[in-house]
Amino acid sequence: MLKLYYTPDTCSLATHIVLEEVGADYSTTRIDFASRQQQSTEYLKVNPKGRVPALVTDRGILTETPAMLVYVAQSFPKSDLALMGDPFAFAKVQAFNAYLCSHLHVAHAHRMRGHRWVDADDAHSIAAMQRKVPQSVGSAYEAIERDMLKGPWVMGDRYTICDAYLFTLAQWLEKDGVDPNRIQRVVDHRQRMSERATVKKAIAQELAP
Amino acid sequence: MLKLYYTPDTCSLATHIVLEEVGADYSTTRIDFASRQQQSTEYLKVNPKGRVPALVTDRGILTETPAMLVYVAQSFPKSDLALMGDPFAFAKVQAFNAYLCSHLHVAHAHRMRGHRWVDADDAHSIAAMQRKVPQSVGSAYEAIERDMLKGPWVMGDRYTICDAYLFTLAQWLEKDGVDPNRIQRVVDHRQRMSERATVKKAIAQELAP
Repeated sequence: MLKLYYTPDTCSLATHIVLEEVGADYSTTRIDFASRQQQSTEYLKVNPKGRVPALVTDRGILTETPAMLVYVAQSFPKSDLALMGDPFAFAKVQAFNAYLCSHLHVAHAHRMRGHRWVDADDAHSIAAMQRKVPQSVGSAYEAIERDMLKGPWVMGDRYTICDAYLFTLAQWLEKDGVDPNRIQRVVDHRQRMSERATVKKAIAQELAP
Repeated sequence: MLKLYYTPDTCSLATHIVLEEVGADYSTTRIDFASRQQQSTEYLKVNPKGRVPALVTDRGILTETPAMLVYVAQSFPKSDLALMGDPFAFAKVQAFNAYLCSHLHVAHAHRMRGHRWVDADDAHSIAAMQRKVPQSVGSAYEAIERDMLKGPWVMGDRYTICDAYLFTLAQWLEKDGVDPNRIQRVVDHRQRMSERATVKKAIAQELAP
């Protein structure tokens, strides 16, 4: 059975949603950021990078959302949630997810995790990074709106792992200072996703006491 | 036939090497950063993100290195360079490449591209980012050395797309201020890669006038 290490309001929700979509038999374990559990000796044995998500499989532990999403899709081939049978379609799925992890999520992280890229006590630079987030995250969403999101789903008529990943990151766009009116199709997609039973179930599980 | 848009000394080399490894029939087009050709009207039609690499296929254009590497491997299945037949092994390949694109390459980019995350005229913050690079890039390489690089190749005995990608980024570690003596296995891997005929050919093509 699969086990997902997650934290509410992080990108682990994407894998959680896809586990629901494919009907996987899985359990979840919450990692508490408030007590810095992600840096505990016990959790560092699961993921030495000290981050969520991590997915325990019967072969070993996996990390990194783009890899985990494809793993779940490939492990439940009937779902065909990554379009892996078509190398070009799969590459488009992968390119979208790579953009989310290396551009959109990274831009977002400069609001709360600036200490990764400047000294933590450099208040000027930490604040400078925070001020740039509405622009850097906003331009990433504008690129998604203009060039990537085909509609109604990211890849067009086919629902894929991209949809769970975009929905997850799009939870944060208002807090990042992005004007939702400038990216109406992204916001419509988020609404469409929020109505899915699988999405509701994954979120409810994460927020349960 | 495939066509790779590349710029010397960028991550496009990874895909270039893999095109050589699989014996693909491909051509290359150089994009000149000095004249900001990546932002030209013509190139923005190829890749609206204004970056290299981009790969023209008979189905359309692909971007994002992790996606392109898997696309080339999947298009030449005999090469088995992504271990795609085994979902867990493929996920390990994907997790490694995701770490390179979203952690290692991002940390590196704070040395030359800090303007992506703070205002370009904020000299203090730009310099603060540059000072942090030896530590942020260095700790990413230490994680690779300690937890990911199995040896002799990244995935162990099997040469994969991960090797071309790590080799490509490892070109920059001295300029990033990382002490190579602290990551001897990464440096040995880079040496091992540099001796491959495919790697020599890709580099020679990129540096030819």
